[in-house]
Amino acid sequence: MKLYTYFRSSAAYRVRIALNLKGLAWEVVPVHLVKDGGQHRKPDYLALNPAGLVPALEDDGQVFTQSLAIIEYLDETHREPPLLPADAAGRARVRALAQAIACDIHPINNLRVLQYLKRELGVSDEQKDAWYRHWCELGLAAVEAMLAGDARTGRFCHGDAPGLADCCLVPQVFNARRFGAKLDAMPTVLHIVDACEMLDAFRLAAPGVQPDAE
Amino acid sequence: MKLYTYFRSSAAYRVRIALNLKGLAWEVVPVHLVKDGGQHRKPDYLALNPAGLVPALEDDGQVFTQSLAIIEYLDETHREPPLLPADAAGRARVRALAQAIACDIHPINNLRVLQYLKRELGVSDEQKDAWYRHWCELGLAAVEAMLAGDARTGRFCHGDAPGLADCCLVPQVFNARRFGAKLDAMPTVLHIVDACEMLDAFRLAAPGVQPDAE
Repeated sequence: MKLYTYFRSSAAYRVRIALNLKGLAWEVVPVHLVKDGGQHRKPDYLALNPAGLVPALEDDGQVFTQSLAIIEYLDETHREPPLLPADAAGRARVRALAQAIACDIHPINNLRVLQYLKRELGVSDEQKDAWYRHWCELGLAAVEAMLAGDARTGRFCHGDAPGLADCCLVPQVFNARRFGAKLDAMPTVLHIVDACEMLDAFRLAAPGVQPDAE
Repeated sequence: MKLYTYFRSSAAYRVRIALNLKGLAWEVVPVHLVKDGGQHRKPDYLALNPAGLVPALEDDGQVFTQSLAIIEYLDETHREPPLLPADAAGRARVRALAQAIACDIHPINNLRVLQYLKRELGVSDEQKDAWYRHWCELGLAAVEAMLAGDARTGRFCHGDAPGLADCCLVPQVFNARRFGAKLDAMPTVLHIVDACEMLDAFRLAAPGVQPDAE
Protein backbone atom coordinates (compact mmCIF):
# COMPACT_ATOMS: atom_id res chain seq x y z
CA MET A 1 0.00 0.00 0.00
CA LYS A 2 1.08 3.54 -0.73
CA LEU A 3 -0.15 6.47 1.34
CA TYR A 4 -0.02 9.92 -0.23
CA THR A 5 0.40 11.97 2.89
CA TYR A 6 1.53 15.25 4.39
CA PHE A 7 2.90 15.04 7.91
CA ARG A 8 0.75 17.92 9.14
CA SER A 9 -2.52 16.91 7.43
CA SER A 10 -5.04 15.94 10.05
CA ALA A 11 -6.93 13.77 7.55
CA ALA A 12 -3.75 11.86 6.64
CA TYR A 13 -2.97 11.51 10.36
CA ARG A 14 -6.34 9.72 10.81
CA VAL A 15 -5.48 7.18 8.13
CA ARG A 16 -1.97 6.64 9.53
CA ILE A 17 -3.51 5.76 12.90
CA ALA A 18 -5.95 3.33 11.27
CA LEU A 19 -3.17 1.64 9.29
CA ASN A 20 -1.17 1.26 12.51
CA LEU A 21 -4.15 -0.09 14.45
CA LYS A 22 -4.60 -2.70 11.72
CA GLY A 23 -0.89 -3.53 11.83
CA LEU A 24 -0.47 -2.74 8.13
CA ALA A 25 2.76 -1.57 6.51
CA TRP A 26 2.70 1.19 3.92
CA GLU A 27 4.99 3.18 1.69
CA VAL A 28 5.01 6.93 2.31
CA VAL A 29 4.58 9.19 -0.70
CA PRO A 30 4.98 12.73 0.63
CA VAL A 31 2.79 15.42 -0.93
CA HIS A 32 3.85 18.82 0.35
CA LEU A 33 0.91 21.18 0.70
CA VAL A 34 3.00 24.36 0.74
CA LYS A 35 6.23 23.71 -1.21
CA ASP A 36 6.17 24.34 -4.99
CA GLY A 37 2.89 26.19 -4.60
CA GLY A 38 1.36 22.97 -3.27
CA GLN A 39 2.34 19.58 -4.70
CA HIS A 40 -1.30 18.48 -4.29
CA ARG A 41 -2.21 20.93 -7.08
CA LYS A 42 0.20 19.44 -9.65
CA PRO A 43 -1.24 17.49 -12.61
CA ASP A 44 0.39 14.24 -11.46
CA TYR A 45 -1.39 14.30 -8.16
CA LEU A 46 -4.67 15.59 -9.59
CA ALA A 47 -4.70 12.66 -12.01
CA LEU A 48 -4.66 10.44 -8.96
CA ASN A 49 -7.02 12.45 -6.78
CA PRO A 50 -9.02 15.08 -8.67
CA ALA A 51 -10.00 16.78 -5.42
CA GLY A 52 -6.34 17.71 -4.89
CA LEU A 53 -6.43 16.79 -1.21
CA VAL A 54 -4.46 14.41 0.95
CA PRO A 55 -4.58 11.63 1.89
CA ALA A 56 -4.99 9.14 -0.93
CA LEU A 57 -4.34 5.44 -0.53
CA GLU A 58 -3.19 3.18 -3.33
CA ASP A 59 -4.06 -0.45 -2.75
CA ASP A 60 -4.33 -3.32 -5.15
CA GLY A 61 -3.97 -1.02 -8.19
CA GLN A 62 -6.78 1.26 -7.09
CA VAL A 63 -6.73 4.73 -5.55
CA PHE A 64 -8.93 5.56 -2.59
CA THR A 65 -9.65 9.07 -1.31
CA GLN A 66 -11.38 10.73 1.64
CA SER A 67 -9.99 9.71 5.00
CA LEU A 68 -13.19 8.25 6.48
CA ALA A 69 -13.95 6.27 3.33
CA ILE A 70 -10.36 4.97 3.35
CA ILE A 71 -10.60 3.89 6.99
CA GLU A 72 -13.91 2.08 6.37
CA TYR A 73 -12.30 0.39 3.35
CA LEU A 74 -9.37 -0.74 5.52
CA ASP A 75 -11.82 -1.96 8.14
CA GLU A 76 -13.75 -4.00 5.57
CA THR A 77 -10.69 -5.50 3.92
CA HIS A 78 -8.73 -6.17 7.13
CA ARG A 79 -11.25 -7.18 9.77
CA GLU A 80 -9.03 -7.34 12.86
CA PRO A 81 -9.11 -5.40 15.07
CA PRO A 82 -12.47 -3.88 14.07
CA LEU A 83 -12.64 -0.09 14.05
CA LEU A 84 -16.44 0.00 14.12
CA PRO A 85 -18.78 -1.74 16.61
CA ALA A 86 -20.78 -4.81 15.66
CA ASP A 87 -24.25 -3.27 16.11
CA ALA A 88 -25.92 -0.82 13.71
CA ALA A 89 -26.71 1.75 16.43
CA GLY A 90 -23.13 1.61 17.70
CA ARG A 91 -21.75 2.01 14.20
CA ALA A 92 -24.03 5.00 13.66
CA ARG A 93 -22.76 6.56 16.88
CA VAL A 94 -19.09 6.06 16.01
CA ARG A 95 -19.63 7.40 12.48
CA ALA A 96 -21.50 10.41 13.89
CA LEU A 97 -18.61 11.15 16.25
CA ALA A 98 -16.13 10.83 13.39
CA GLN A 99 -18.25 13.08 11.17
CA ALA A 100 -18.75 15.64 13.95
CA ILE A 101 -15.00 16.14 13.54
CA ALA A 102 -14.42 15.35 9.86
CA CYS A 103 -17.43 17.36 8.62
CA ASP A 104 -18.13 19.97 11.28
CA ILE A 105 -14.66 21.05 12.39
CA HIS A 106 -11.83 20.09 10.09
CA PRO A 107 -13.01 21.34 6.65
CA ILE A 108 -13.76 24.84 7.96
CA ASN A 109 -10.21 25.06 9.33
CA ASN A 110 -8.47 23.43 6.40
CA LEU A 111 -5.37 25.13 4.99
CA ARG A 112 -7.10 26.21 1.79
CA VAL A 113 -9.90 27.89 3.73
CA LEU A 114 -7.41 29.75 5.94
CA GLN A 115 -5.56 30.82 2.80
CA TYR A 116 -8.82 32.14 1.27
CA LEU A 117 -9.57 34.10 4.44
CA LYS A 118 -6.17 35.78 4.23
CA ARG A 119 -5.75 36.23 0.49
CA GLU A 120 -9.30 36.91 -0.68
CA LEU A 121 -10.90 38.43 2.38
CA GLY A 122 -7.81 40.09 3.83
CA VAL A 123 -8.42 38.99 7.40
CA SER A 124 -5.59 39.50 9.90
CA ASP A 125 -3.58 36.68 11.47
CA GLU A 126 -5.40 37.33 14.75
CA GLN A 127 -8.79 36.96 13.05
CA LYS A 128 -7.64 33.82 11.26
CA ASP A 129 -6.47 32.25 14.52
CA ALA A 130 -9.69 33.26 16.27
CA TRP A 131 -11.63 31.61 13.41
CA TYR A 132 -9.61 28.43 13.89
CA ARG A 133 -10.15 28.32 17.63
CA HIS A 134 -13.86 29.17 17.29
CA TRP A 135 -14.72 26.16 15.11
CA CYS A 136 -12.40 23.88 17.07
CA GLU A 137 -13.89 24.82 20.43
CA LEU A 138 -17.49 24.78 19.22
CA GLY A 139 -17.07 21.45 17.46
CA LEU A 140 -15.11 19.74 20.22
CA ALA A 141 -17.64 20.95 22.82
CA ALA A 142 -20.30 19.08 20.82
CA VAL A 143 -18.08 15.99 20.73
CA GLU A 144 -17.51 16.29 24.50
CA ALA A 145 -21.28 16.40 25.08
CA MET A 146 -21.81 13.39 22.80
CA LEU A 147 -19.14 11.45 24.70
CA ALA A 148 -19.87 12.57 28.27
CA GLY A 149 -23.59 11.93 27.98
CA ASP A 150 -23.40 8.37 26.73
CA ALA A 151 -22.78 5.19 28.71
CA ARG A 152 -21.16 3.61 25.66
CA THR A 153 -18.14 5.87 26.06
CA GLY A 154 -15.35 3.95 27.73
CA ARG A 155 -11.61 4.25 27.86
CA PHE A 156 -11.97 5.25 24.19
CA CYS A 157 -14.79 6.98 22.30
CA HIS A 158 -16.85 3.79 22.12
CA GLY A 159 -16.00 1.15 24.67
CA ASP A 160 -12.53 0.10 25.65
CA ALA A 161 -10.88 -0.37 22.26
CA PRO A 162 -9.85 2.40 19.87
CA GLY A 163 -11.80 2.84 16.65
CA LEU A 164 -12.80 5.17 13.85
CA ALA A 165 -13.87 8.02 16.15
CA ASP A 166 -10.57 7.93 18.04
CA CYS A 167 -8.70 8.05 14.70
CA CYS A 168 -10.43 11.42 14.13
CA LEU A 169 -10.35 12.79 17.66
CA VAL A 170 -6.61 12.62 18.29
CA PRO A 171 -5.54 14.58 15.16
CA GLN A 172 -8.23 17.20 15.83
CA VAL A 173 -7.07 17.71 19.42
CA PHE A 174 -3.47 17.83 18.21
CA ASN A 175 -4.44 20.72 15.90
CA ALA A 176 -6.58 22.39 18.55
CA ARG A 177 -3.57 22.49 20.87
CA ARG A 178 -1.32 23.77 18.11
CA PHE A 179 -3.64 26.75 17.64
CA GLY A 180 -4.15 27.34 21.37
CA ALA A 181 -7.84 26.37 21.54
CA LYS A 182 -9.27 26.13 25.07
CA LEU A 183 -9.95 22.52 25.98
CA ASP A 184 -10.38 22.78 29.78
CA ALA A 185 -14.11 22.14 29.61
CA MET A 186 -13.61 18.87 27.74
CA PRO A 187 -12.42 16.32 30.32
CA THR A 188 -13.83 13.30 28.48
CA VAL A 189 -12.15 14.26 25.23
CA LEU A 190 -8.85 14.79 27.02
CA HIS A 191 -9.05 11.49 28.92
CA ILE A 192 -9.64 9.62 25.69
CA VAL A 193 -6.80 11.40 23.92
CA ASP A 194 -4.49 10.51 26.83
CA ALA A 195 -5.51 6.85 26.55
CA CYS A 196 -4.89 6.91 22.78
CA GLU A 197 -1.51 8.54 23.11
CA MET A 198 -0.31 5.66 25.27
CA LEU A 199 -0.61 3.41 22.22
CA ASP A 200 2.14 3.08 19.60
CA ALA A 201 -0.48 3.10 16.83
CA PHE A 202 -1.28 6.69 17.69
CA ARG A 203 2.21 7.79 18.71
CA LEU A 204 3.81 6.55 15.50
CA ALA A 205 1.19 8.32 13.39
CA ALA A 206 1.88 11.75 14.88
CA PRO A 207 3.04 14.54 12.56
CA GLY A 208 6.38 15.04 14.31
CA VAL A 209 7.64 11.50 13.67
CA GLN A 210 6.71 11.22 9.99
CA PRO A 211 9.52 10.86 7.43
CA ASP A 212 8.40 14.12 5.77
CA ALA A 213 8.22 16.06 9.07
CA GLU A 214 10.01 19.39 9.19
CA MET B 1 -39.41 7.45 12.97
CA LYS B 2 -39.12 11.16 13.64
CA LEU B 3 -36.95 13.41 11.53
CA TYR B 4 -35.82 16.71 13.02
CA THR B 5 -35.49 18.71 9.87
CA TYR B 6 -35.39 22.15 8.31
CA PHE B 7 -36.73 22.37 4.79
CA ARG B 8 -33.70 24.27 3.51
CA SER B 9 -31.00 22.18 5.24
CA SER B 10 -29.02 20.33 2.66
CA ALA B 11 -28.02 17.67 5.19
CA ALA B 12 -31.68 17.05 6.12
CA TYR B 13 -32.53 16.93 2.41
CA ARG B 14 -30.04 14.04 1.99
CA VAL B 15 -31.74 12.03 4.72
CA ARG B 16 -35.21 12.76 3.33
CA ILE B 17 -34.10 11.32 -0.02
CA ALA B 18 -32.69 8.21 1.65
CA LEU B 19 -35.88 7.67 3.67
CA ASN B 20 -37.89 7.96 0.45
CA LEU B 21 -35.60 5.60 -1.46
CA LYS B 22 -36.11 3.05 1.33
CA GLY B 23 -39.86 3.61 1.21
CA LEU B 24 -39.97 4.58 4.90
CA ALA B 25 -42.55 6.86 6.48
CA TRP B 26 -41.50 9.46 9.04
CA GLU B 27 -42.92 12.17 11.21
CA VAL B 28 -41.60 15.67 10.52
CA VAL B 29 -40.37 17.69 13.50
CA PRO B 30 -39.49 21.11 12.09
CA VAL B 31 -36.46 22.86 13.61
CA HIS B 32 -36.26 26.39 12.27
CA LEU B 33 -32.66 27.52 11.88
CA VAL B 34 -33.48 31.24 11.76
CA LYS B 35 -36.71 31.84 13.73
CA ASP B 36 -36.43 32.46 17.51
CA GLY B 37 -32.68 33.01 17.08
CA GLY B 38 -32.44 29.42 15.80
CA GLN B 39 -34.54 26.65 17.30
CA HIS B 40 -31.54 24.32 16.93
CA ARG B 41 -29.79 26.32 19.65
CA LYS B 42 -32.56 25.85 22.26
CA PRO B 43 -31.92 23.57 25.27
CA ASP B 44 -34.63 21.11 24.16
CA TYR B 45 -32.94 20.45 20.87
CA LEU B 46 -29.41 20.51 22.29
CA ALA B 47 -30.43 17.80 24.76
CA LEU B 48 -31.29 15.69 21.75
CA ASN B 49 -28.36 16.68 19.55
CA PRO B 50 -25.53 18.45 21.40
CA ALA B 51 -24.04 19.62 18.11
CA GLY B 52 -27.13 21.78 17.55
CA LEU B 53 -27.36 20.83 13.90
CA VAL B 54 -30.08 19.28 11.77
CA PRO B 55 -30.97 16.62 10.90
CA ALA B 56 -31.46 14.20 13.75
CA LEU B 57 -33.41 10.97 13.42
CA GLU B 58 -35.28 9.33 16.26
CA ASP B 59 -35.78 5.62 15.75
CA ASP B 60 -36.55 2.90 18.21
CA GLY B 61 -36.04 5.23 21.19
CA GLN B 62 -32.58 6.33 20.05
CA VAL B 63 -31.41 9.55 18.46
CA PHE B 64 -29.06 9.48 15.49
CA THR B 65 -27.13 12.47 14.16
CA GLN B 66 -24.92 13.34 11.19
CA SER B 67 -26.60 12.83 7.84
CA LEU B 68 -24.15 10.29 6.39
CA ALA B 69 -24.14 8.23 9.58
CA ILE B 70 -27.95 8.30 9.57
CA ILE B 71 -28.12 7.13 5.95
CA GLU B 72 -25.69 4.27 6.61
CA TYR B 73 -27.79 3.33 9.64
CA LEU B 74 -30.94 3.28 7.50
CA ASP B 75 -29.09 1.22 4.91
CA GLU B 76 -28.01 -1.32 7.52
CA THR B 77 -31.40 -1.59 9.19
CA HIS B 78 -33.49 -1.57 5.99
CA ARG B 79 -31.51 -3.46 3.39
CA GLU B 80 -33.63 -2.88 0.28
CA PRO B 81 -32.90 -1.14 -1.97
CA PRO B 82 -29.20 -0.92 -1.00
CA LEU B 83 -27.68 2.57 -1.02
CA LEU B 84 -24.11 1.26 -1.08
CA PRO B 85 -22.57 -1.23 -3.54
CA ALA B 86 -21.79 -4.80 -2.53
CA ASP B 87 -17.99 -4.61 -3.00
CA ALA B 88 -15.56 -2.88 -0.64
CA ALA B 89 -13.90 -0.82 -3.40
CA GLY B 90 -17.30 0.31 -4.67
CA ARG B 91 -18.43 1.25 -1.19
CA ALA B 92 -15.22 3.22 -0.70
CA ARG B 93 -15.86 5.07 -3.95
CA VAL B 94 -19.46 5.95 -3.08
CA ARG B 95 -18.47 7.06 0.42
CA ALA B 96 -15.64 9.18 -1.03
CA LEU B 97 -18.08 10.87 -3.42
CA ALA B 98 -20.51 11.50 -0.56
CA GLN B 99 -17.72 12.89 1.62
CA ALA B 100 -16.34 15.05 -1.19
CA ILE B 101 -19.65 16.87 -0.81
CA ALA B 102 -20.47 16.41 2.88
CA CYS B 103 -16.94 17.22 4.10
CA ASP B 104 -15.34 19.36 1.40
CA ILE B 105 -18.20 21.59 0.26
CA HIS B 106 -21.18 21.76 2.55
CA PRO B 107 -19.62 22.57 5.97
CA ILE B 108 -17.68 25.53 4.61
CA ASN B 109 -20.91 26.99 3.22
CA ASN B 110 -23.10 26.15 6.17
CA LEU B 111 -25.38 28.88 7.53
CA ARG B 112 -23.37 29.33 10.73
CA VAL B 113 -20.17 29.85 8.76
CA LEU B 114 -21.81 32.43 6.51
CA GLN B 115 -23.15 34.17 9.63
CA TYR B 116 -19.64 34.25 11.14
CA LEU B 117 -18.24 35.75 7.93
CA LYS B 118 -20.79 38.54 8.09
CA ARG B 119 -21.02 39.17 11.83
CA GLU B 120 -17.47 38.56 13.00
CA LEU B 121 -15.43 39.35 9.92
CA GLY B 122 -17.73 41.97 8.44
CA VAL B 123 -17.56 40.67 4.87
CA SER B 124 -20.02 42.11 2.35
CA ASP B 125 -22.91 40.18 0.84
CA GLU B 126 -20.99 40.06 -2.45
CA GLN B 127 -17.96 38.53 -0.74
CA LYS B 128 -20.15 36.06 1.11
CA ASP B 129 -21.83 34.94 -2.12
CA ALA B 130 -18.46 34.69 -3.88
CA TRP B 131 -17.25 32.52 -0.98
CA TYR B 132 -20.28 30.28 -1.41
CA ARG B 133 -19.81 29.89 -5.14
CA HIS B 134 -16.05 29.37 -4.80
CA TRP B 135 -16.32 26.28 -2.57
CA CYS B 136 -19.31 24.96 -4.50
CA GLU B 137 -17.60 25.23 -7.86
CA LEU B 138 -14.24 23.93 -6.63
CA GLY B 139 -15.84 21.01 -4.82
CA LEU B 140 -18.27 20.06 -7.56
CA ALA B 141 -15.50 20.24 -10.16
CA ALA B 142 -13.68 17.57 -8.13
CA VAL B 143 -16.86 15.49 -7.99
CA GLU B 144 -17.29 15.89 -11.75
CA ALA B 145 -13.73 14.62 -12.32
CA MET B 146 -14.31 11.67 -10.00
CA LEU B 147 -17.50 10.79 -11.87
CA ALA B 148 -16.44 11.50 -15.45
CA GLY B 149 -13.19 9.58 -15.14
CA ASP B 150 -14.65 6.35 -13.82
CA ALA B 151 -16.38 3.57 -15.76
CA ARG B 152 -18.46 2.73 -12.67
CA THR B 153 -20.45 5.92 -13.13
CA GLY B 154 -23.76 5.10 -14.79
CA ARG B 155 -27.12 6.74 -14.93
CA PHE B 156 -26.41 7.59 -11.28
CA CYS B 157 -23.17 8.23 -9.37
CA HIS B 158 -22.40 4.52 -9.15
CA GLY B 159 -24.13 2.30 -11.66
CA ASP B 160 -27.76 2.56 -12.62
CA ALA B 161 -29.45 2.77 -9.26
CA PRO B 162 -29.42 5.76 -6.92
CA GLY B 163 -27.43 5.54 -3.69
CA LEU B 164 -25.65 7.41 -0.93
CA ALA B 165 -23.63 9.64 -3.28
CA ASP B 166 -26.76 10.71 -5.17
CA CYS B 167 -28.44 11.56 -1.85
CA CYS B 168 -25.62 14.09 -1.32
CA LEU B 169 -25.21 15.33 -4.88
CA VAL B 170 -28.78 16.51 -5.52
CA PRO B 171 -29.05 18.79 -2.45
CA GLN B 172 -25.60 20.24 -3.15
CA VAL B 173 -26.51 21.08 -6.75
CA PHE B 174 -29.82 22.50 -5.56
CA ASN B 175 -27.88 24.89 -3.31
CA ALA B 176 -25.29 25.64 -5.97
CA ARG B 177 -28.06 26.77 -8.30
CA ARG B 178 -29.69 28.83 -5.58
CA PHE B 179 -26.46 30.79 -5.16
CA GLY B 180 -25.78 31.08 -8.88
CA ALA B 181 -22.70 28.85 -9.03
CA LYS B 182 -21.45 28.02 -12.55
CA LEU B 183 -22.11 24.39 -13.38
CA ASP B 184 -21.62 24.42 -17.18
CA ALA B 185 -18.36 22.48 -16.98
CA MET B 186 -20.02 19.64 -15.06
CA PRO B 187 -22.04 17.64 -17.59
CA THR B 188 -21.81 14.34 -15.71
CA VAL B 189 -23.02 15.92 -12.48
CA LEU B 190 -25.92 17.57 -14.29
CA HIS B 191 -26.91 14.38 -16.12
CA ILE B 192 -27.04 12.48 -12.86
CA VAL B 193 -29.04 15.20 -11.14
CA ASP B 194 -31.52 15.14 -14.02
CA ALA B 195 -31.89 11.37 -13.68
CA CYS B 196 -32.44 11.72 -9.92
CA GLU B 197 -35.01 14.44 -10.29
CA MET B 198 -37.16 12.14 -12.40
CA LEU B 199 -37.68 10.00 -9.30
CA ASP B 200 -40.35 10.74 -6.70
CA ALA B 201 -37.91 9.85 -3.91
CA PHE B 202 -35.86 12.90 -4.85
CA ARG B 203 -38.73 15.17 -5.88
CA LEU B 204 -40.67 14.64 -2.67
CA ALA B 205 -37.57 15.39 -0.57
CA ALA B 206 -36.99 18.82 -2.13
CA PRO B 207 -37.07 21.88 0.14
CA GLY B 208 -40.02 23.51 -1.62
CA VAL B 209 -42.46 20.66 -0.93
CA GLN B 210 -41.67 20.14 2.77
CA PRO B 211 -44.41 20.85 5.32
CA ASP B 212 -42.21 23.53 6.92
CA ALA B 213 -41.34 25.21 3.59
CA GLU B 214 -41.81 28.96 3.40
